[in-house]
Amino acid sequence: MARQKKCRICKQEGFIHLRYANLPLCKKHFISRTESVVQSTINKFRMFSKKDRLLVAVSGGKDSLALWHIIEKLGFKADGLHIDLELGEFSKLSREISEQFSKTHRFYLNVISVKEELGGYIDDFVKIAYEKPCSLCGTVKRYILNKFAYENGYDVLLTGHNLDDETARLLGNLLIWDKDYVYRQYPVLPAEAKMVKKVKPLVFISRNELLAYCDAEHIEYVKITCPHSTGARSLVMVDILDQLENRYPATKLRFLKGFFKIRNLFESEREVNLYECHECGMTTTSEKLCRFCRIKNRIKDKNAAKNF
Amino acid sequence: MARQKKCRICKQEGFIHLRYANLPLCKKHFISRTESVVQSTINKFRMFSKKDRLLVAVSGGKDSLALWHIIEKLGFKADGLHIDLELGEFSKLSREISEQFSKTHRFYLNVISVKEELGGYIDDFVKIAYEKPCSLCGTVKRYILNKFAYENGYDVLLTGHNLDDETARLLGNLLIWDKDYVYRQYPVLPAEAKMVKKVKPLVFISRNELLAYCDAEHIEYVKITCPHSTGARSLVMVDILDQLENRYPATKLRFLKGFFKIRNLFESEREVNLYECHECGMTTTSEKLCRFCRIKNRIKDKNAAKNF
Repeated sequence: MARQKKCRICKQEGFIHLRYANLPLCKKHFISRTESVVQSTINKFRMFSKKDRLLVAVSGGKDSLALWHIIEKLGFKADGLHIDLELGEFSKLSREISEQFSKTHRFYLNVISVKEELGGYIDDFVKIAYEKPCSLCGTVKRYILNKFAYENGYDVLLTGHNLDDETARLLGNLLIWDKDYVYRQYPVLPAEAKMVKKVKPLVFISRNELLAYCDAEHIEYVKITCPHSTGARSLVMVDILDQLENRYPATKLRFLKGFFKIRNLFESEREVNLYECHECGMTTTSEKLCRFCRIKNRIKDKNAAKNF
Repeated sequence: MARQKKCRICKQEGFIHLRYANLPLCKKHFISRTESVVQSTINKFRMFSKKDRLLVAVSGGKDSLALWHIIEKLGFKADGLHIDLELGEFSKLSREISEQFSKTHRFYLNVISVKEELGGYIDDFVKIAYEKPCSLCGTVKRYILNKFAYENGYDVLLTGHNLDDETARLLGNLLIWDKDYVYRQYPVLPAEAKMVKKVKPLVFISRNELLAYCDAEHIEYVKITCPHSTGARSLVMVDILDQLENRYPATKLRFLKGFFKIRNLFESEREVNLYECHECGMTTTSEKLCRFCRIKNRIKDKNAAKNF
C-alpha cells in the first residue's frame, strides 16, 4: 500500500493505494469508501436496521473499535460489551482502551469479567485441559456475548471479524473439508432459540484497511497481541493468504465472495437438534450440559480438589 | 525427509522418513510401499484391469517414468506416448531420455511431434495469442494424447499427475471457486464419445516420494524444467502447500482425500452437450471447432500472412 499516487476521485494527495481494486485514494475518500463498503455489506446481508437494538463485541483491538465507530457514523446506535479475559497486561490494556474509547465517543460500554462468569481464569483451564487456548477462549467469549445479548434484549450481536480472519478460517476449514464448519461460515447467522442473530459487517474490509482506517480516524487501539496467539493455526493461514494476495491482488476478496455464492452446496440435509443446557438453560446442541458449563464444572472440580 | 531412523518394518538402515505417516523405511520397503499405494489407488478408483490396453503419457520427467516403471512392475502391460514439444534443449533431452528409458526397459514408445500435428511450434502460438503458454500447451497435449489413444484402440490413458500437482490445482480452483473445474478434478474420468478413459494412479504419491523412488530404482529422468514454467501459478500453489505440509504434515493427503469424499457436492445439474468438431471430428463442447483446431487455424492464418 504505497502512498505515492494521487486520489482517483479528487486528485489530492494520496493516503492509500488499494491494490486489490487498483485504487489510490486520499484520506477523506478512503474513509468514506470504507464506510460505504460496510453499509452495503449490512444491506446485502440484511444484517440490521435502525429499529434493532445492537450490541458490539468490543475487544479493544482495531477491528472492534473501527466497527463500533463506523456503524455509529452510519447512523446506527449500538452498545458495547467488553469481556475482560484477565490474561495479564494484554487484558488490562484492552479494557482500559475500550473504556477510554467509549468515554471519548460517549458510547455505552458494558464490561464482564471472565473470572466471575467462569469461576476461574482461562489460563487455569488451559493448564488442566488438553485444548488449544484459542478454541477454549472462543467458546467462552461466544457464550458470554450471546448470553448477555439474549438476557438484555439485544436483537443483533456484531463482531469485528475482517476479511483476513474470514479467509484464513475458510482456508483452514477447506484444507480439512469440515463440511459443517464451512457451511456455518457466513456474515449473518439468524436468531434461533436463545441464540441471538450474529453479524460480521467487516467481512469485506482487510486488516490493512482497518489499520489505515484507525490511523485516519485517530482511533487508538491495543497494539500488543494476546499472549496465547503465537503459533496459532489461524495466523499461519493469514500468512499464506498474504503471500497469495501479494502476488495476485484481490485473491482474498474473490475467494470469500466466490464462496458466499456457492456456500449452499455445503448445506447439510440432517437437522441439528437444539436443547436447553441442564445447568444454565442456554441453547446447546448437546443433550445435557453446554460446553461452557462443562468447562466451568471442570474448573470447579479442580478448585475443590485443590482446597481439599 | 531425514535419513537417520531405522526402517520401521525390518530395522535395517533407513532410506527415507515419510513425515506425513511418521514412517521411517529402508529402500526395499519404501519401494514396495510406494508400489502398493499405486496398486490400491488403481483398485479403489477401478482405473483398469489386466485386460485393458493401456497408454502412458511419457514426458521424460520423474512422474511419468516412475508411473510406467511401477505399473509394469505391478504386472500390467502399457505402451508409452511421448509428445515432442520442440521447446529447444528441454524437449530434445526429454525425448532422448524417454527413448532411452523405453529401450532399456524394452517398453514400446510412440513419439509424436507437436509441430507435425499443430502445423507450427508452441512458441509461435504463444507469440500470437494472448494465452498463457501452460494453458495452451495443456490443450495441445490433452488433444494429441486423447486422439492417439482413441485412434489406436487404447482403453485407458494414464498420466503421472502426483499429489503435489493435484493439491496445487485444487487449491487454485478453490481460490476462484470454479465449480465445474473443481468437480472435474478426480483420479478417473470415464470414457465418453471419442474421449478415452483417463486415470491418474499417482495422485496419492508426493513429488518427494517420486524423486526418492526414481533414486532408489535408478530411473534417469529429465532434471531441467520447461522454459515456460517459471512463475507459473501452479508453482506458486505448490510452494504454498509445501509450507503448510512442512508445518502440518499430511496436510496435502488430507486435503485431497477429504475433497474426493465431498466432491459430489460440486456436481452440476446442467448437462454438458458434446459435439463433433467440424474439422477433425473429435469430441468437443463447442458447436463448431474444437479448441485444438482453432489454435491450428490461427497458426495457419499467421503463416499464410507471413508468406503473402
